[in-house]
Amino acid sequence: MESDLITWLRRRLPPHPLLRLGPGDDAAVLRMAGLAECAVTVDMLSDGVDFQLNQIDPQRAGRKALAVNLSDLAAVAARPLAGVVSVCLPRSGGGELAKALVEGMLPLAEKYDVAIAGGDTNSGDGPLVISITLLGAVSERGPLRRDGVRLGDRILVTGALGGSLLGRHLDFEPRVREALLLHERYRLHAGIDISDGLSVDLAHLAEASGCGAVLHTTNVPIHDDARRLARDRADGPSPLDRALHDGEDFELILAVPPAVAETLLAEQPLDVPLTDVGEFVAEPGLWQVDVRGARRELVPRGWEHQL
Amino acid sequence: MESDLITWLRRRLPPHPLLRLGPGDDAAVLRMAGLAECAVTVDMLSDGVDFQLNQIDPQRAGRKALAVNLSDLAAVAARPLAGVVSVCLPRSGGGELAKALVEGMLPLAEKYDVAIAGGDTNSGDGPLVISITLLGAVSERGPLRRDGVRLGDRILVTGALGGSLLGRHLDFEPRVREALLLHERYRLHAGIDISDGLSVDLAHLAEASGCGAVLHTTNVPIHDDARRLARDRADGPSPLDRALHDGEDFELILAVPPAVAETLLAEQPLDVPLTDVGEFVAEPGLWQVDVRGARRELVPRGWEHQL
Repeated sequence: MESDLITWLRRRLPPHPLLRLGPGDDAAVLRMAGLAECAVTVDMLSDGVDFQLNQIDPQRAGRKALAVNLSDLAAVAARPLAGVVSVCLPRSGGGELAKALVEGMLPLAEKYDVAIAGGDTNSGDGPLVISITLLGAVSERGPLRRDGVRLGDRILVTGALGGSLLGRHLDFEPRVREALLLHERYRLHAGIDISDGLSVDLAHLAEASGCGAVLHTTNVPIHDDARRLARDRADGPSPLDRALHDGEDFELILAVPPAVAETLLAEQPLDVPLTDVGEFVAEPGLWQVDVRGARRELVPRGWEHQL
Repeated sequence: MESDLITWLRRRLPPHPLLRLGPGDDAAVLRMAGLAECAVTVDMLSDGVDFQLNQIDPQRAGRKALAVNLSDLAAVAARPLAGVVSVCLPRSGGGELAKALVEGMLPLAEKYDVAIAGGDTNSGDGPLVISITLLGAVSERGPLRRDGVRLGDRILVTGALGGSLLGRHLDFEPRVREALLLHERYRLHAGIDISDGLSVDLAHLAEASGCGAVLHTTNVPIHDDARRLARDRADGPSPLDRALHDGEDFELILAVPPAVAETLLAEQPLDVPLTDVGEFVAEPGLWQVDVRGARRELVPRGWEHQL
């Protein structure tokens, strides 16, 4: 990494009790005593795919790069610990861009107590590429996995879905606290975060667990942004289709035993709503039941990077 | 990550006792019990800067991406544990390229017992970008830092330097075993690996420790590749200049108390030679002493990415 940037980083990054050795050496060193299991996740974002630097403040890109990783830790119910950041910068203005990216990360890092432990920069002729690796502490209950669904489990989702392109795909709140609270207090069987879309990620969860899933589409919580987008683009997808397929909601899908689901829905222990959107079934595949009770196949549609 | 690639990875990656949860979930989970301190390092490489994919087998690029990270762990004397890989792939042929990169990593991962725990892919219009984050176990002696040099310490280097462009910059052996052995058996004060070049990295070591360094240039071990390159490019740098500045040698520079240096030079406990190339001094800066004993400033020159 260029030495100006390292000097700036060493001054700018807050100290953190986890860091025995912070940025500036060949590797950072983290205090890990007492940690039985460590979650590791990496996400790589790039300009033109995950954000458009010519349309947004680069701080929002930096924030998103950290937030998507936090969302991955939330998906396995791990408490964020520390992260390292690598960026491939444009040849001119790269230093300033790197600083803006870090500035965008810092409030989120502070909020979730993440030690920014180090990084690396490269430069090239291509678009900005940013990769963050986060480490998290897995609780004594173990990680919340994708493959733990049991037949009959209810499908719960946090928040409301669809239309994230209006801005939430950048500024969403990763459901870290929600995942930790639920995993600690309730018996969850499996979980995933919604990055590609409810349909695709629910299909991932079912597939990993060797079962199928039935969505009651009338129960799917539709975000106002989905309605707004549908109104503004009359020839585009309906609000429901947006909630099912838009993606980048970064809400959680949880597989929960029916009795636990009942308790959760009654208690609503989060600041965001928990909604029951269906159940897991033996027959593999993804199914939808509409308002008339008719059941038909639901084809998962991935996020199409249509910024 | 695209699901074909995940399926392939889950089949291809060998099981590893560290992995409680491997690739395919939102995060990997590593067993870390008993580990007091964890080193974390990240390096990002890109096509056109760190390798030229139109000239080499992509497996060599994958190998290098892992090897430079292993070299960073060697520099702090940490034992490699696990890593995650993220790649920004070209829009066409990305899947095959990703597999080739992984195939290039696997023999090295096996050799150094690194669990490949997970990854992420993205795609774009730019050149291939690959980022690897490695975790390592720090021994009870703590990490080998850059800022531990004491006045009068000898400067030792492993191996021979210069001319890595002839191929060693891709196929070098990271000095992991050497660093672990030396750190365990001898009292080392500080260390760094040579990525940018002996002059630049020695200056880093001295600066981090608040001192200066004097290089006895006649003692610098010059690699045959440096001589070969100098012969082939008569108007280019001399063999010594190549050894001082070419970079990407990925050998170690160590700061060692004089008595320990004497023992090390007599015992030569490694398969590669250890050479005394000078000493650390109070006066900040980088100095060279030539064959006639004349001392003058040595201007550190970074690696110029001239593939």
